[in-house]
Amino acid sequence: MLACLTLLQVKRRHYTIAIREWKKKKFKNIHCLSVLIFLCLNSQGVRKSYREVIDVSWGDPHRAGVKPLSFVRQVLAACLYPQLMDGDKLMVDVKQRAQRLLKTCAGGSVGSYSDAAGIPQIIQSVSEYILRRDGGIPCHPENIYITPGSQWALTNILKVLVNSEASPRTGVLIPVPCHSTTIVSLTALGAVAVPYYLSEERGWALEVETLQQALDSAKGVCNPVALYIINPGNPVMFKFYKILKFWTCFVSYKRALAEIGAPLSDTVELASFHTASKGLMGECGLRTGYVELVNLDPAVMKYINNLFSTNSCPVLGQVALDVMVNPPQPGDPSYPLYLKHIRASLAENVRRVEEVINSFPSFSCQSLEGGAFAFPRVFLPPKAIEKAKEAGLQPDTFYCMRLLEEAGVLFSPGTEYGQMEGTYHISFCIMTPTDTMEEILKRLSTFHKQFMREFA
Amino acid sequence: MLACLTLLQVKRRHYTIAIREWKKKKFKNIHCLSVLIFLCLNSQGVRKSYREVIDVSWGDPHRAGVKPLSFVRQVLAACLYPQLMDGDKLMVDVKQRAQRLLKTCAGGSVGSYSDAAGIPQIIQSVSEYILRRDGGIPCHPENIYITPGSQWALTNILKVLVNSEASPRTGVLIPVPCHSTTIVSLTALGAVAVPYYLSEERGWALEVETLQQALDSAKGVCNPVALYIINPGNPVMFKFYKILKFWTCFVSYKRALAEIGAPLSDTVELASFHTASKGLMGECGLRTGYVELVNLDPAVMKYINNLFSTNSCPVLGQVALDVMVNPPQPGDPSYPLYLKHIRASLAENVRRVEEVINSFPSFSCQSLEGGAFAFPRVFLPPKAIEKAKEAGLQPDTFYCMRLLEEAGVLFSPGTEYGQMEGTYHISFCIMTPTDTMEEILKRLSTFHKQFMREFA
Repeated sequence: MLACLTLLQVKRRHYTIAIREWKKKKFKNIHCLSVLIFLCLNSQGVRKSYREVIDVSWGDPHRAGVKPLSFVRQVLAACLYPQLMDGDKLMVDVKQRAQRLLKTCAGGSVGSYSDAAGIPQIIQSVSEYILRRDGGIPCHPENIYITPGSQWALTNILKVLVNSEASPRTGVLIPVPCHSTTIVSLTALGAVAVPYYLSEERGWALEVETLQQALDSAKGVCNPVALYIINPGNPVMFKFYKILKFWTCFVSYKRALAEIGAPLSDTVELASFHTASKGLMGECGLRTGYVELVNLDPAVMKYINNLFSTNSCPVLGQVALDVMVNPPQPGDPSYPLYLKHIRASLAENVRRVEEVINSFPSFSCQSLEGGAFAFPRVFLPPKAIEKAKEAGLQPDTFYCMRLLEEAGVLFSPGTEYGQMEGTYHISFCIMTPTDTMEEILKRLSTFHKQFMREFA
Repeated sequence: MLACLTLLQVKRRHYTIAIREWKKKKFKNIHCLSVLIFLCLNSQGVRKSYREVIDVSWGDPHRAGVKPLSFVRQVLAACLYPQLMDGDKLMVDVKQRAQRLLKTCAGGSVGSYSDAAGIPQIIQSVSEYILRRDGGIPCHPENIYITPGSQWALTNILKVLVNSEASPRTGVLIPVPCHSTTIVSLTALGAVAVPYYLSEERGWALEVETLQQALDSAKGVCNPVALYIINPGNPVMFKFYKILKFWTCFVSYKRALAEIGAPLSDTVELASFHTASKGLMGECGLRTGYVELVNLDPAVMKYINNLFSTNSCPVLGQVALDVMVNPPQPGDPSYPLYLKHIRASLAENVRRVEEVINSFPSFSCQSLEGGAFAFPRVFLPPKAIEKAKEAGLQPDTFYCMRLLEEAGVLFSPGTEYGQMEGTYHISFCIMTPTDTMEEILKRLSTFHKQFMREFA
């Protein structure tokens, strides 16, 4: 038990919080969460109804059992051990890709250092991808940095943005719900996180009115200089918020900015992040992503260049990024298998999660449009809320703990992401194998019915 | 020409300096250094005596053409694409290692997130390796952090050590010669780099007297709180310098500290770094290393834990680290090939570099005992020194530029690492294929004779 707690303490913040509260409140039936699968006994040593804890509280598809995309892994393996290309086990397009990418590495090896900003040819690939995505709006390779994941890049951009000694303090508008890591980074830098509430009823849409409210709330508190936006799998950040009223439909924010026209399109500073950790690849362990910087002052760019030169993206991560921005195309030998993989990955889970969750009147799940997480609202009965408060817990934390204890499924409570006062949510990653998602939904349904009966 | 300069400007500092000076002084015959191999023409467009520039100014063995160790790459490829283990192409010990390591990854995939400090089982492997290395002196896994390379870890430890607002300023004793990146990191943090000179005559040994001199030189300037030491491929750092007088022979500094006994062994704070970028693997592109922290205050450890949680080592890097600390052993199926690889790598180069360089009375090269670089002293004739000064260059920079221009070999001048006043050195990586090293030595010999004749 002690060993388990020690292990957990080094894990993500919400684990630590949950366990700390759990321990404090003497919920004792938890045995180990450090990996996905554990045999679970209750406090009397009797086996529970489940044999494994399923942990979908992380945005970590492979942890949840999603299989990696073969094309990605084959190209990486061939780059690591080029002798693999001698046989006929690998498709010709895998070999061609690996050969092309190896040529971009110094000494023809993924074991050599790359330029701090990334391998120039891979930066070029990323830039062409952005150009295609945005329908031809120019994208300059010198504005792109390949980074070891997007969180690290985001923290560095925030360092540039936030003046820790400013008075009034620097403010950054952040959405609610939002990952707690962003808020932690902001406050650690001395900035004020100014929350703006997304509209749950409109599928978590961003509304100009709520941004205006957030700006009003910042008056006298801080000086808001930037707006942080999370798109499904595509967080972007704007400096200055004049642009808000121009958003009408979903396109990339880079494109939206360009289409507004001068003077905003030439002056609003934009940092747009992307990563191979999310999206179809889900390759969190490779630590790779990129940031595109638009309209930044050359002196600031120089400063950022120095900041980013302290830590480069691993070369294999860069190779994976090349595949992310140039996946197999129809006609390529690897395309049929690739297509099968990506089809298997998400669509069925999206359909089932919406179907099962929305079959309960005490749940409400917005349409899942490309994000890695579901964030359904749960309407908790007053007795459950009361019970939670007695235990000194937020009601949704109480719900998630009971779910874990009784059904062996680990979700995150909405409390960790922020939510409108008086509303409660649960958050879980939907990128799992379909049979895992079926099992999760089965356990959730059984637990939920029982929970609602108990506190009716 | 312009494109080439732009490329170069994002590269390592010494390139930029060299090229800036070069351009300023109108040395015009350089065409492109951005990768290892280029066709070289002189300013009249006539082909030079060499077809390729050989760049051994980096500590980057794979860039210089060294082949990766097969065992490492096979284990990594098998972890990435486990289907490779189905056939009989891979040795049984490769498969066993890959299977064992995959079990330590969440969801059995190197694509999942790991704990920020590293995968617990791999931390355990590192800890057992340190225990063996130090003859049984205890090593606690909770003191070890697996990090994305050692430079990033070092910079973070320096952040903890240096109080940027202290008066007098924080001082750190650094060896001369030393990589310029360390000095840049220190000064960026507001610390004072206090140089102590290694004794070239004694094979670059560290002497207590020079440390005392360095401490004396710091009086009234700064408050020295730490001592930075680079061992061949194994930089370590001590906080407080009381320990100095106890060093007698080469062992790890962790072991030296332990063997001194209480109270020093229980109180001197030590941070010891290691990386897969240097040493036999030379896997710079994987971005992996570790730091062991000894005798640190628990509150400081907690702070460091937070710092290190902002950026984890890529999982494949962690896998490589496991192989680094547990290479194949006699009796293992992969051992014969592994042995052949590591034998081929360095011993012959060490012998030949010492032999050829020391055959010139105007060169003096200390015995190369495990470092990745040779740093021979060059006795430049007064006329060459004068000529360099006329050109506004340090004499050894002038020498290295002429070497590059006339022989197509890129070394670093000693100036970049620091050296005793009035002495001049050249620095180059000795981790190259043996035939590359032969070519380097041949070109260097021809050039050097000509240079010495020219300025006799």
